[in-house]
Amino acid sequence: MATLNSNYLKLKAGYLFPEIARRVKVFTESNPEAAARMIRCGIGDVTEPLPAAVREAMHAAVDEMGTREGFHGYGPEQGYEFLRTAIAKHDYRDRGLEVADDEIFISDGSKCDGGAILDILGDDNKIAVMDPVYPVYVDTNVMAGHTGKGGEDGSYEGITYLECTAENGFVPAIPAESDEKVDVIYLCFPNNPTGAVASRKQLTDWVAYARKHGSILLYDAAYEAYISEADVPHSIYEIPGACDCAIEFRGFTGTRCAFTVVPKTLTAFSADGERRPLHPLWHRRFTTKFNGVSYVTQRGAAALYSEQGRAEVAALIASYMGNAAILREAVTASGLKVYGGINAPYIWVKGSKEATSWEIFDRMLTEANIVVTPGSGFGRAGEGYFRISAFNSREKALEAAARLKALAW
Amino acid sequence: MATLNSNYLKLKAGYLFPEIARRVKVFTESNPEAAARMIRCGIGDVTEPLPAAVREAMHAAVDEMGTREGFHGYGPEQGYEFLRTAIAKHDYRDRGLEVADDEIFISDGSKCDGGAILDILGDDNKIAVMDPVYPVYVDTNVMAGHTGKGGEDGSYEGITYLECTAENGFVPAIPAESDEKVDVIYLCFPNNPTGAVASRKQLTDWVAYARKHGSILLYDAAYEAYISEADVPHSIYEIPGACDCAIEFRGFTGTRCAFTVVPKTLTAFSADGERRPLHPLWHRRFTTKFNGVSYVTQRGAAALYSEQGRAEVAALIASYMGNAAILREAVTASGLKVYGGINAPYIWVKGSKEATSWEIFDRMLTEANIVVTPGSGFGRAGEGYFRISAFNSREKALEAAARLKALAW
Repeated sequence: MATLNSNYLKLKAGYLFPEIARRVKVFTESNPEAAARMIRCGIGDVTEPLPAAVREAMHAAVDEMGTREGFHGYGPEQGYEFLRTAIAKHDYRDRGLEVADDEIFISDGSKCDGGAILDILGDDNKIAVMDPVYPVYVDTNVMAGHTGKGGEDGSYEGITYLECTAENGFVPAIPAESDEKVDVIYLCFPNNPTGAVASRKQLTDWVAYARKHGSILLYDAAYEAYISEADVPHSIYEIPGACDCAIEFRGFTGTRCAFTVVPKTLTAFSADGERRPLHPLWHRRFTTKFNGVSYVTQRGAAALYSEQGRAEVAALIASYMGNAAILREAVTASGLKVYGGINAPYIWVKGSKEATSWEIFDRMLTEANIVVTPGSGFGRAGEGYFRISAFNSREKALEAAARLKALAW
Repeated sequence: MATLNSNYLKLKAGYLFPEIARRVKVFTESNPEAAARMIRCGIGDVTEPLPAAVREAMHAAVDEMGTREGFHGYGPEQGYEFLRTAIAKHDYRDRGLEVADDEIFISDGSKCDGGAILDILGDDNKIAVMDPVYPVYVDTNVMAGHTGKGGEDGSYEGITYLECTAENGFVPAIPAESDEKVDVIYLCFPNNPTGAVASRKQLTDWVAYARKHGSILLYDAAYEAYISEADVPHSIYEIPGACDCAIEFRGFTGTRCAFTVVPKTLTAFSADGERRPLHPLWHRRFTTKFNGVSYVTQRGAAALYSEQGRAEVAALIASYMGNAAILREAVTASGLKVYGGINAPYIWVKGSKEATSWEIFDRMLTEANIVVTPGSGFGRAGEGYFRISAFNSREKALEAAARLKALAW
């Protein structure tokens, strides 16, 4: 008699973004005119064309695949050397951070990595997440049986929620000595959804906490490329000692390619109480449960490190961050309190006093025909907020800004 | 104090294929001449160019990605409708099998699916695998904590091994009523590594067993396209009742794309003893732990269902199966007993009496400069056998055949 994983039955409602899609669909089906003018600032997904450098590299790779000599079947599961080397060199060693090529693991997405990383960790770890938080971090822990029941506010028993509020600048405080110790801590900077960044001092404190208690930091740096201010750390490995206690996640968007950095010096405790390196476990997971990203995609990703690729990406980022500035200004002008949008493509807005996040969502959908993301979808501390994504064409960002200003709060 | 998943520490040695790669590397580094004449018949990986229809579709999709209108960021996690529909129609409904579009889930590989499927099943299931077996099925269960310790012969406590021998035609017998019941049963036909197929009668017996005991069949049909004999089932869903008890896995090779079929009528038991459908759990896993296969890849896969694509694939398969016939003949001529190679691209060979599989592997490597796969790498019952893959150019298959005949056993 086969059983299913009953932990899945603890999961609340739908995953956030499918639920947004559902509400948009219901509304637009009965409002075809509104559908035509809908502006999507919901899912944090890029909108602009894939850079020419990437397309050229992918075309060339597809042509290679059409020859016997250039055909690539199963590649190395952890990624081709050309890409691992490009990443380790440009993103780390050129910035003075000692990351070896074989500490880079190429995957098909940061979302996938965020779930997969739990495979190599113990089930008895005390998990801490920022609140608000990217829902995948919580949901994958629910699925893995690391939590108790879920409450009405979307939180789960057994998880430590690190509150991120306007008061602490959306960077959580280090747990006090009297608090329960946490073993695995998800940190995301620049943050999704709040757009906040952590200072060098704040990250140094987190690394010190992790090293003191033998904890592991799962550091999501997916939005690192959007950092515009000086002295904001781009990588957790800028903090001395982080290579003993942190895994970093980053991605390339648009073609399903991402990577994790698992330093060889990173350890965790096995059931017999020994400290053992995690690198061989992650390597083993890759060879056994994954078969590499396709050659064509990896060639496309590697092209981002060419001179042309870097220039094109810089232009794209400048365009998205221009949108962010326009949207920030519009929201501020409408009298609402705004955060983020300076080192991240996300703007985090406090709604007017009584409205819940979903009420604001529905109002933005039906009155302004703008899709935003309800803050409460990211956790209890996000209630009353909403997230606006700057991923859009300039034209649509300008139109969204005009509609935001026209809304009476 | 963070802990790691200590189940990983139970895993024996390296995963089979990396170990083969390691031995080949060691040998060729000190024998550069042999390296140049090496013929790889080890990993079951295609060698011939990607069909023109696929390349054309991928080129077109890359170009689309270069326009704002045609850019595709995050797609539906379960796959684009155009591909799900093409699969459900051509592979199932056109053959009289009732599979709905939304019972098809597009993934980045059957290997990945084979590991991922355990996420939605309970940890208390009694697991049965064929022996010999694709190592991923066993290793992913070890990682998930479904086994005890591993033995010297590569088997693990707690797993039921269904012996596949020359005597039973490499199709395992149904467990007797007096045997312990098994809950999750991995079946693979056409089989990797033995090349065996199960008859309609044999599969009907397995479906009857599963339905009687509430078990689930995980049916790996990755090599379905290689079936040449009439009346060999191509899908488990050809067996009445299978949609209540079976999940089917298939793939497209070369570009990291595959799919699973999870019927909506398939159920398993939750902790409270209720029968519940698995489809919503698999759907939830996809939306939470995966972000879809890239648009370019899915367009390439869909092109396989065009008239041109089907003709090109048929020609490729005919070429590989021609190799299989040549290699079968050569091995037979050398006096060894040969199986498979008729409905599958794999030839399964019984070595001469005393040699172990790895001894044969080393001898083939050093004397004939042919890389094969040692049968014992697939499990205890594979000891003394080796697998030859027919995935090669015709030229190399002919050369391998000549060398095989020249070897004195």
